[in-house]
Amino acid sequence: MCELLAMSANVPTDIRFSFKGLAVRGGEVGPHRDGFGIVFYHGKGLQEFRDVDASCDSPVARLVEDLPIRSKAVIAHVRQANAGAVNLENTHPFHRELFGRHFTFAHNGQLPGVKKLPLGRFKPVGTTDSEHAFCYLLDQLDLSRLPSVASVGRIFSRVAEKLSKLGVCNLVLTDGRAIYCWRTTKLVWITRRAPFGAARLQDADMTVDFAQLTTPNDVVTVVATDPLTDNEEWSEVPERQVKILVDGEWK
Amino acid sequence: MCELLAMSANVPTDIRFSFKGLAVRGGEVGPHRDGFGIVFYHGKGLQEFRDVDASCDSPVARLVEDLPIRSKAVIAHVRQANAGAVNLENTHPFHRELFGRHFTFAHNGQLPGVKKLPLGRFKPVGTTDSEHAFCYLLDQLDLSRLPSVASVGRIFSRVAEKLSKLGVCNLVLTDGRAIYCWRTTKLVWITRRAPFGAARLQDADMTVDFAQLTTPNDVVTVVATDPLTDNEEWSEVPERQVKILVDGEWK
Repeated sequence: MCELLAMSANVPTDIRFSFKGLAVRGGEVGPHRDGFGIVFYHGKGLQEFRDVDASCDSPVARLVEDLPIRSKAVIAHVRQANAGAVNLENTHPFHRELFGRHFTFAHNGQLPGVKKLPLGRFKPVGTTDSEHAFCYLLDQLDLSRLPSVASVGRIFSRVAEKLSKLGVCNLVLTDGRAIYCWRTTKLVWITRRAPFGAARLQDADMTVDFAQLTTPNDVVTVVATDPLTDNEEWSEVPERQVKILVDGEWK
Repeated sequence: MCELLAMSANVPTDIRFSFKGLAVRGGEVGPHRDGFGIVFYHGKGLQEFRDVDASCDSPVARLVEDLPIRSKAVIAHVRQANAGAVNLENTHPFHRELFGRHFTFAHNGQLPGVKKLPLGRFKPVGTTDSEHAFCYLLDQLDLSRLPSVASVGRIFSRVAEKLSKLGVCNLVLTDGRAIYCWRTTKLVWITRRAPFGAARLQDADMTVDFAQLTTPNDVVTVVATDPLTDNEEWSEVPERQVKILVDGEWK
């Protein structure tokens, strides 16, 4: 299995605290030693970092923890391989361009039989179930022009429902405009807004006082496989319902 | 204008020395302050690093200079913006998946009028001439299945000839199997093989004795806009002829 992390915010926001909480699960307190990846959106552009090393050991992960990269939409993943070898082409998040937009996708779970779903123009580079599912999803989104956020949500929901019949299917998807979430087993979220308080990581000795780092209008929602902090209230993403984040708020 | 760097090798090879020679031209001794990018192939998978900061200042570039990443196919680029704003979506190299392979492309030059070329399924995310040219090229490669290296070379040659009528067109392309090169003005290369010697960067106080870092069978070819070292003999890529590198050797 794997762990997912996504962030949506109304201002470019530093995700290092949450990424640290995820990265220690990549081989230190968690078993997810088989690589990691993180994709930051800056407008329509992407900045990505990935490695086949465990995120707890990777110098690339250390750089991500050190750099104050600010973004309004982020997706990250630490991997424990089950389907597909440990190599870069099997490392999430996956992304593809469609209608001049980068779509980025990460999956937690297993989808036995997914490779029977026929593919069109998008083909997997690696051998994971997850990338096959992503290519299938993109084919459904490949209409005559870029679908609206609501249309992407509807199509994503239809595909996620189909995938969920195959197995564990916790998903995060973004096109830079919105973050689309789907849960069958594990996916939680928290929204931070004024008045901001302190948050303490569950798996690392790190506390941040968000009141010192934010302005009163900031709204930031973090989505993760399991709660990353132990002094805040995280909620479950509703089961088998597409949930859409835009600028840190659920739509 | 911009500067290009590409490497093809028969064994996974560390490109830090050449990248250092390129990175100092990104704002320190050269004017190319508008971002940089580097893509490493590991099998079919990619590891990429990019930044909108000048490569001489970027902490991401420092990481690339520090990390001993070994690869058989690398493309890198430092940018001085002329067409298109300074942002991540306009930062080379560009890449797209086609037939389950990542294709990666970087361009030095300007191609006025290129946006009149009609596009199919591949659409630019940013606003550069270069990305439009790449999308046009990919459409020509989008046949019924993955073209052979020789076929990619023929199609690349035909498209590059067409683009070269528009303006300065120095190109490097890779699909991980081969590096395809095209020059109208500036593109030079060097092949290093046994007996290896010492090389000294032209623009930075750095010398490497490749005899200490290689085995007798290693073959490494580096392609760049201008010679990176001042004690070795670099050759020009022939003008307006596609030249293809596989495992460090010209085919």
